[in-house]
Amino acid sequence: MELMREAGLDPRIDAAGNIFGTRDGSERGLKPILFGSHIDSVPSGGNFDGDLGSLSAIEVVRTLKDRGVVTRHPLQVVIWQNEEGGLVGSHAAVGDVLDLERQFSGIRLGDGLRKIGGNPDRLAEARMAPGSFHCYLELHIEQGGNLDRAGIPIGVVEGIVSIDEYDVEITGFANHAGTTPMPERHNALLAAAKLIDAVQQIVTREPGRQVGTVGRLAVFPNAPNVVPGMVKHSIELRDLSADKIARLGQVVETQAQQIARDTGTKITITKVEHDPPALASPEVQSRIEQAAARLGLKTMRLPSGAGHDAQMMDKLGPMGMIFVPSVGGISHSPKELTHWPDCANGANVLLQTVLLMDTSQVLNTRDPAARPTVSE
Amino acid sequence: MELMREAGLDPRIDAAGNIFGTRDGSERGLKPILFGSHIDSVPSGGNFDGDLGSLSAIEVVRTLKDRGVVTRHPLQVVIWQNEEGGLVGSHAAVGDVLDLERQFSGIRLGDGLRKIGGNPDRLAEARMAPGSFHCYLELHIEQGGNLDRAGIPIGVVEGIVSIDEYDVEITGFANHAGTTPMPERHNALLAAAKLIDAVQQIVTREPGRQVGTVGRLAVFPNAPNVVPGMVKHSIELRDLSADKIARLGQVVETQAQQIARDTGTKITITKVEHDPPALASPEVQSRIEQAAARLGLKTMRLPSGAGHDAQMMDKLGPMGMIFVPSVGGISHSPKELTHWPDCANGANVLLQTVLLMDTSQVLNTRDPAARPTVSE
Repeated sequence: MELMREAGLDPRIDAAGNIFGTRDGSERGLKPILFGSHIDSVPSGGNFDGDLGSLSAIEVVRTLKDRGVVTRHPLQVVIWQNEEGGLVGSHAAVGDVLDLERQFSGIRLGDGLRKIGGNPDRLAEARMAPGSFHCYLELHIEQGGNLDRAGIPIGVVEGIVSIDEYDVEITGFANHAGTTPMPERHNALLAAAKLIDAVQQIVTREPGRQVGTVGRLAVFPNAPNVVPGMVKHSIELRDLSADKIARLGQVVETQAQQIARDTGTKITITKVEHDPPALASPEVQSRIEQAAARLGLKTMRLPSGAGHDAQMMDKLGPMGMIFVPSVGGISHSPKELTHWPDCANGANVLLQTVLLMDTSQVLNTRDPAARPTVSE
Repeated sequence: MELMREAGLDPRIDAAGNIFGTRDGSERGLKPILFGSHIDSVPSGGNFDGDLGSLSAIEVVRTLKDRGVVTRHPLQVVIWQNEEGGLVGSHAAVGDVLDLERQFSGIRLGDGLRKIGGNPDRLAEARMAPGSFHCYLELHIEQGGNLDRAGIPIGVVEGIVSIDEYDVEITGFANHAGTTPMPERHNALLAAAKLIDAVQQIVTREPGRQVGTVGRLAVFPNAPNVVPGMVKHSIELRDLSADKIARLGQVVETQAQQIARDTGTKITITKVEHDPPALASPEVQSRIEQAAARLGLKTMRLPSGAGHDAQMMDKLGPMGMIFVPSVGGISHSPKELTHWPDCANGANVLLQTVLLMDTSQVLNTRDPAARPTVSE
């Protein structure tokens, strides 16, 4: 908040513990350009995830102040609280109910909110109205390795992927590994192995950036000398297209039933979570590309496989995200690294995008009354 | 022991807690025919595993007493203690050192030994000399389903299988399941899935009764949204031929290194246990078949995939085992069942085998000085 004041922003903490710093614009009645990120991290995390977008947002305003530039729109820098705990602060901003009893690092969410200046009794006041900002912008490290491998400094995020998560339960028959001949087995782990391989084949055999992961698996009774009688595991599918992962999920289901027949097991697949995709505004994407072009920086369009506060803001108005390269695609690790020149490039693209958006009228593609009237 | 006395056996408990009941033979200087099984069970076990062979052994002697038959050889019925805990009583009988601090059902082995009449301070006295018996016979339920499926009442055990157990460690790279594209992954669980399937293929693609099992597996970090960075699992191979499972283990190792290359992981396979096979005496096997033929009962030769006290006795002299059908191959379960007529068949084959062995001179195939001089 001290950095915000130095940059000419007037900071306040809302009831959900988010920090908003505002600088007035030159024209009355215009909505603010909202931009920022988060400053919380995961245990044993790195120095760039969240911090880069938060400090760059303040730096953008400080630069405008230093150069004496006043924008038409008000500028609003936001620092979302507890992004890593599941977009907690931005969930509150869109009016989602928070579980105040849930614990993070041993502290109840309600108590933690008070500690950072929020008020758990007045969370409704943190709710933002749809259409309350001109656009939302967020600079973030990619966390994947696409930009690093391609040697491209700026990523233009097409959207934040949709996620389908399934629980799989495979029931066979636990039996003595010495006395049960191979043809007589109902081996739940053999079925799981075939299904894990099938998920890999199904996800990779068509073009696109979809991913599929079996990350959690448990075997019962889990002894070297017992044919596994039951296996429980997760399947997670992600893509910008919710239709595509729904279709892939169907193929997995069909294949699973074939594997069940082949292995003499029973396979039950239950969808336990569906997160819809959050598509970035096409206008904002174009402005980010224009901004990068002004600076002579190459860009690449790509989806965000990870979740971000931007996906909450997408529910309220036009959203866009700028990615910069993560060395080796590593994140949530002390080895997380974005080289300083790439950090500076990201901050400069954010600055130029804010300026371009200040002169644009943005289409909210979810408002049927809106017409595209983008002008520079 | 009361049942033994009623049958004309003179019972004693040795220092290792095993019960030996002896009945004199008619000729001086002949070695005893040793036969029996165990009466301990697993938690939630059944009524036949061990008990059938133990009570049938006493019944055989009672029948001989009732008919006034005196054998040439002394008869010795043995009830081994704690078979299910790892052949504890018969390990002591061959002179293996027991871990007296090890706990079973919350009781130290040393204390448990005293409780059942043994003496942990004088375990050396429980040691039996090689060649101290004419032959060792054991009637047992099959625990597998081979006899039940084939509708054959008597199994002639060829031997107790050799076991090779391996620990497998697969190292990939844990990474974000949303931001790590499929071609960039080093997925340890995908490698494990391919290896589990490979073990199945390698073990089943050649004829024979070998079995291969991956029964224990753990995934790290084991979260739905993280590409698995490490997997640890067991591989267990069993067959009567130690050479065959050693060769299969080599094929698995070769295949594993191919999978490691294909998946960008590192796979380390370490042999953690090797149990040599215990082959039944060919002469004893023939006598069991003759005994069954006398009773008009069909027989099938088969390996024992499970361990038995007989494999310890195999270190000291000629050994043979009689199997009877387990309904559905189920054991170590309250559902364990051998129909009463099959139990009676087994006891009668044991009786006839004892009588046939009483007139046989058995070749100890491990004694190079011995010559086959079997006569009836």
